[in-house]
Amino acid sequence: MLEELKQAVYDANMALPKHGLVTFTWGNASGIDRARGLMVIKPSGVEYEELRPDQLVVLDLDGNKVEGSLNPSSDTQTHLELYRAFPEIGGVVHTHSTFAVGWAQACEDIPCYGTTHADYFYGPIPCSRQLTTEEIEEAYEKNTGRVIIETLQERQIQPMHVPGIVCANHGPFTWGKDAAQAVYHAVVLEEVAKMAFITRGINPQVQSAPQNVQDKHFMRKHGPNAYYGQKKA
Amino acid sequence: MLEELKQAVYDANMALPKHGLVTFTWGNASGIDRARGLMVIKPSGVEYEELRPDQLVVLDLDGNKVEGSLNPSSDTQTHLELYRAFPEIGGVVHTHSTFAVGWAQACEDIPCYGTTHADYFYGPIPCSRQLTTEEIEEAYEKNTGRVIIETLQERQIQPMHVPGIVCANHGPFTWGKDAAQAVYHAVVLEEVAKMAFITRGINPQVQSAPQNVQDKHFMRKHGPNAYYGQKKA
Amino acid sequence: MLEELKQAVYDANMALPKHGLVTFTWGNASGIDRARGLMVIKPSGVEYEELRPDQLVVLDLDGNKVEGSLNPSSDTQTHLELYRAFPEIGGVVHTHSTFAVGWAQACEDIPCYGTTHADYFYGPIPCSRQLTTEEIEEAYEKNTGRVIIETLQERQIQPMHVPGIVCANHGPFTWGKDAAQAVYHAVVLEEVAKMAFITRGINPQVQSAPQNVQDKHFMRKHGPNAYYGQKKA
Amino acid sequence: MLEELKQAVYDANMALPKHGLVTFTWGNASGIDRARGLMVIKPSGVEYEELRPDQLVVLDLDGNKVEGSLNPSSDTQTHLELYRAFPEIGGVVHTHSTFAVGWAQACEDIPCYGTTHADYFYGPIPCSRQLTTEEIEEAYEKNTGRVIIETLQERQIQPMHVPGIVCANHGPFTWGKDAAQAVYHAVVLEEVAKMAFITRGINPQVQSAPQNVQDKHFMRKHGPNAYYGQKKA
Repeated sequence: MLEELKQAVYDANMALPKHGLVTFTWGNASGIDRARGLMVIKPSGVEYEELRPDQLVVLDLDGNKVEGSLNPSSDTQTHLELYRAFPEIGGVVHTHSTFAVGWAQACEDIPCYGTTHADYFYGPIPCSRQLTTEEIEEAYEKNTGRVIIETLQERQIQPMHVPGIVCANHGPFTWGKDAAQAVYHAVVLEEVAKMAFITRGINPQVQSAPQNVQDKHFMRKHGPNAYYGQKKA
Repeated sequence: MLEELKQAVYDANMALPKHGLVTFTWGNASGIDRARGLMVIKPSGVEYEELRPDQLVVLDLDGNKVEGSLNPSSDTQTHLELYRAFPEIGGVVHTHSTFAVGWAQACEDIPCYGTTHADYFYGPIPCSRQLTTEEIEEAYEKNTGRVIIETLQERQIQPMHVPGIVCANHGPFTWGKDAAQAVYHAVVLEEVAKMAFITRGINPQVQSAPQNVQDKHFMRKHGPNAYYGQKKA
Repeated sequence: MLEELKQAVYDANMALPKHGLVTFTWGNASGIDRARGLMVIKPSGVEYEELRPDQLVVLDLDGNKVEGSLNPSSDTQTHLELYRAFPEIGGVVHTHSTFAVGWAQACEDIPCYGTTHADYFYGPIPCSRQLTTEEIEEAYEKNTGRVIIETLQERQIQPMHVPGIVCANHGPFTWGKDAAQAVYHAVVLEEVAKMAFITRGINPQVQSAPQNVQDKHFMRKHGPNAYYGQKKA
Repeated sequence: MLEELKQAVYDANMALPKHGLVTFTWGNASGIDRARGLMVIKPSGVEYEELRPDQLVVLDLDGNKVEGSLNPSSDTQTHLELYRAFPEIGGVVHTHSTFAVGWAQACEDIPCYGTTHADYFYGPIPCSRQLTTEEIEEAYEKNTGRVIIETLQERQIQPMHVPGIVCANHGPFTWGKDAAQAVYHAVVLEEVAKMAFITRGINPQVQSAPQNVQDKHFMRKHGPNAYYGQKKA
């Protein structure tokens, strides 16, 4: 079942080490078939070199396994929370990419210092708050998702305007219209995390980019009058 | 038409990912045929792995498309401004290379700290000013070019003595006698941007290299008595 | 003799340059056959490109050579000390990996700033004290091992809970249930050393990750109720 | 003539880009035949991908060209000064490797923070003084060599105990018993320059490694009782 989606999610997972975003098994990508209400995700702890499309695990949105002999990613409940809360997303990626983790561990938002960032993320990439001991003990992965959702809601952020976050003391989650776009956003997030580290190294008192250039760059790619790339008639 | 120039501009574009200067489609190279007044540039948003020489777009210096079925790079108007203002240049490159963006986002000139820099850039690599909201709204890419030109003129810089700039909160533009040399200068700019980051990390109070060594290195490569490399009789 | 162990230790040694952990010959991996009381280790100063499994050296736990025509690694006495003190370990790795050496040279523990670290190392990765002149002159490599052991004992650390250390002004040693796992821990240590460097660069006053998240991540991989990966029935 | 030496110097030059030490043509290696008093060096400005052994240039120690149709490296006079002053060296390398240039541009010695450094360089790697305008105008490359020699003499350093230096606002020169060893030392210098940058980033007030561990590591590799590696009977 879902052979096309499985292949797409497989490809997305394999793109993570190719882009240098994961060491060993420290990452996972998923995709969703909204019509059927089924999510496809990487199995837990399987090496990328050995991963095959038929090993991917299919679950319904309540987390019941529908197909697959292996355990799904240990981060499955986080993915499910995001799919339930944000109907506009079709793919989710989690990694421990190096510079994104640096900001997560510093417990700071990644400020929007320039157009590379503004082309894809409209405003700072938020750092979510730390979980309480109760949240950790009760349902760690599920509550990781809930805190991501809480962060976007409190800041009144539309998920497709800021398609990623860093979780405090942990690492990045990104999302997109499908698994491939979630990978794309994971690459962008890591690159802007590195650029922001360098920028602050040059000038520790640096300010965010002016709002006018942030507006311009996000809108020329994503607004109603977007003119970047090749448009279909 | 312009098959030779198209191949040269294609080669220049393909050299950008090869040198590690671009992620995804975040870069573009162009070249000009001064006799015919025609510019060849990368199409917008096309992946480098899929780019073919016949996809390059040909425009006249007023920006009218002369050949090509795809949209030209979204930065086309910036390239055109530079060609119109600087008759001595034959190629232009724009990237979001990591360390150059770091300086652009810090809104600081890249100081000339040593001979690697002085061999190609005579003096600091300027950081242009931020655009006004009016400039952004009226004609963003065109005015990006105009602010680059304004920066060089105000500082009385000859374009071939400082063949590149970082645009505030954005990234680097470089140029040269042709597209290949503009790529070469893009590689140099990124490398000296990285070296300058490291230098300032070691000593935040570091000063620019003495003027005498800056003069010597630029002149032994570019002055009337240059003696670096192999000279033709 | 010990053909299987020799192959495993050979593979572990060859994995070190593959993971970017060693320059030239600056690293070594060993493994032990506890039943026979024999250790297999890389010969000293042999280039990785030229290393063959039959060149590995076999020693007993008193350091007597049992097989092999070459000198064992100059760090042999450190490996032997660790095997004698920690019966639960089956493999040891030493490298001069770049960021781990950075912390060793700064003479600081690598703080646990996040979950990448906590997944494998329970608490900070200690930096051992400097050796005295007497310890250096009497038996440098042996005493390097003794100071590692002293560090773990004084801090009441179980070796398999913190499977690695950085030695002051020197570099990292890691261990595991076998040579392959010691390599795995060497990769993790280098990556978390890099992440910690970045984290502190972003915020020099950053604090360690809260204890609750450190507990959660170490226990979900290593505790009695671990649920990461695929479990055997 | 000198076919064996030419091949060795060719191999040394080709090792520089392989080790990531040079961008474009920014480096050169030479070797000397002491019996004949002839030096072999890379031609100036020739791309590494196109370099062939027969393009190397042969000069006597007064700088007269003895063989070769191309101009020798623009740094030829620096190499010659070093060969004339230090009869124990057989090879010289110059690069603009990134982190070594960082220290050169900061005009600071690279302190000996640990054993990776102490294994090859006995004490700090000096940063030479800046040249005067007179020295630059009179004979820049020759005086670069003279200032290197002056630095070692004033600090009473034996060249084979500290086989490299960084020239202020410029970059590293290294040497060794032959061209291959000069390359080896160029790799070590770049790696310890990177480690020292990281170390100071972690702790800006860090001190040099204690003298006892510097003595031990240099001597166990280079002293009369050296025991690292495989010894000949």
